[in-house]
Amino acid sequence: MHVGHWFGNVENMLRLQEEHECFYFIADWHMLTTHFDRTAELPGFTRELVLDLLAAGIDPERVTLYRQSDVKEVAEMTLLLGMITPLGWLERVPTYKERLRDNAERDIANLGLLGYPLLQTVDIAIVKGELVPVGEDQVPHLELSREVVRRFNRLYGDVLVEPQPLLSETPLISGTDGRKMSKSLDNVLDVRDEEDKVRATIRSFITDPRKVRRGDPGRPEICPIFTLHERFSPDILEWTEANCRTGELGCVDCKTNLADRVVEFYRPFRERREELEHRAGLADEVLAAGAAKVRPVVEETMKAVRDAMHLS
Amino acid sequence: MHVGHWFGNVENMLRLQEEHECFYFIADWHMLTTHFDRTAELPGFTRELVLDLLAAGIDPERVTLYRQSDVKEVAEMTLLLGMITPLGWLERVPTYKERLRDNAERDIANLGLLGYPLLQTVDIAIVKGELVPVGEDQVPHLELSREVVRRFNRLYGDVLVEPQPLLSETPLISGTDGRKMSKSLDNVLDVRDEEDKVRATIRSFITDPRKVRRGDPGRPEICPIFTLHERFSPDILEWTEANCRTGELGCVDCKTNLADRVVEFYRPFRERREELEHRAGLADEVLAAGAAKVRPVVEETMKAVRDAMHLS
Repeated sequence: MHVGHWFGNVENMLRLQEEHECFYFIADWHMLTTHFDRTAELPGFTRELVLDLLAAGIDPERVTLYRQSDVKEVAEMTLLLGMITPLGWLERVPTYKERLRDNAERDIANLGLLGYPLLQTVDIAIVKGELVPVGEDQVPHLELSREVVRRFNRLYGDVLVEPQPLLSETPLISGTDGRKMSKSLDNVLDVRDEEDKVRATIRSFITDPRKVRRGDPGRPEICPIFTLHERFSPDILEWTEANCRTGELGCVDCKTNLADRVVEFYRPFRERREELEHRAGLADEVLAAGAAKVRPVVEETMKAVRDAMHLS
Repeated sequence: MHVGHWFGNVENMLRLQEEHECFYFIADWHMLTTHFDRTAELPGFTRELVLDLLAAGIDPERVTLYRQSDVKEVAEMTLLLGMITPLGWLERVPTYKERLRDNAERDIANLGLLGYPLLQTVDIAIVKGELVPVGEDQVPHLELSREVVRRFNRLYGDVLVEPQPLLSETPLISGTDGRKMSKSLDNVLDVRDEEDKVRATIRSFITDPRKVRRGDPGRPEICPIFTLHERFSPDILEWTEANCRTGELGCVDCKTNLADRVVEFYRPFRERREELEHRAGLADEVLAAGAAKVRPVVEETMKAVRDAMHLS
């Protein structure tokens, strides 16, 4: 889990669990769409993510936290909804073409990749999801989900809930190279890193290329370090901006200020995470409990879907 | 069930159950690819087909006879194999384009239709099918199944059985209008019809258009009635051919000869079918027993598949 995830997803999840009945899941089947040739990483990834979420404060007593592949009905419903989902709807989802482009050197134009937004539709519909937190870029996905749900209800009766978007601000967090922070770009600041690693990573960030040394005036608006200050340094934000512009504040000191705050910000998380790391079997227990918790909801939906379609 | 099914499928199924361990199933999920808007017909269709098969002599003690939708793992495995099935492989299967063409007035270009051959692949692989009886037109389907299985085994280890085709002669049975006998063309001779109906249907068949009345020479090789004689009338086949050609045999008498034999041929079937019709709940019982019988095989395959993919 990196800082981009934290502010893009986790903060949102923490806020929403206070306000709504939430269903959060580890989308391991979704990962197969692009990582079908790296499934050996799945168990470790799943375990890490569960512990990260717990350490971040996601409360499995309050939300339903489960693993997608533990809910086999998701596959059944995906097969059924696939029967009424026009190929054209799926081909028009922009992220489909983006993913093909981003993975041009690999051969991933598989049925599963095309069906990705339908699988998402089922993830939502099977737990009767009413609100789906989405960033602007995911609105077309949700629009497809709404269309599929409407088509199902028109054909078979009013069974599925049409989900509504809950537009959430997803701040753009830049990575060490100035591009969007992303694991696949290898430019991330990991929230689990030890203090030394955090400081080293922050030192490695690019800054305004025109500010070569202390004394040169800087432009905070194009500096990835400043976007992080905006998240972590409310106490010195104005001061940082002003002194960067005058040139009085050098990048080395500015990064040290940021690193101090990042280290402090994630200290409680890292301590909880370390503690959870030593509780053997915890992730499996949490997932088993989550699967049991989601089961009645899923079974109710599937029964209604099968009945409406006259299926066994 | 019509005479085209009987000689195209049922005879084959009866023969194979003597020679192999067979898995036969009611493909209700497959029907959704083209009949997603007529699912109310599914329960009746399923029940009728089960009783037809039993009356025809399919022995559920000997074979495993089950309903596809009772085996939810079929959906799970379809989702998983979809992750490694290139869209191009599916788009190249000739029946996909044929089905689109045959249903041009309806909008059936759905994800499920494109995925049809993959669902078939799973039907085969999930019961470790070694031999698949196919007609010439289904060879491309099976070739796709073999490719998907090979790809799975290459990626995840040697888990799935690569099925081999068991090429079966599927005689072309013509319907009342001379085209291939097919329910959707409304030109069928139904094996369950009463004697009067059988005789009326046979009278309605077209024959050689140049043979207008008795005395005119006929051409058995283009006459749909003669293709039926080839199946039902071994005792008078040579005589019929010779006397049709000379013109001595008129079409009315020729059809009466055929009808006599068709009625006799299906008499035992119709009697058993009638008897089974009155055993309430029989189809459901047979399907429940079949689901229980197929379960251990399916669970074994799915466990191996999930383990190989590092999934839960």
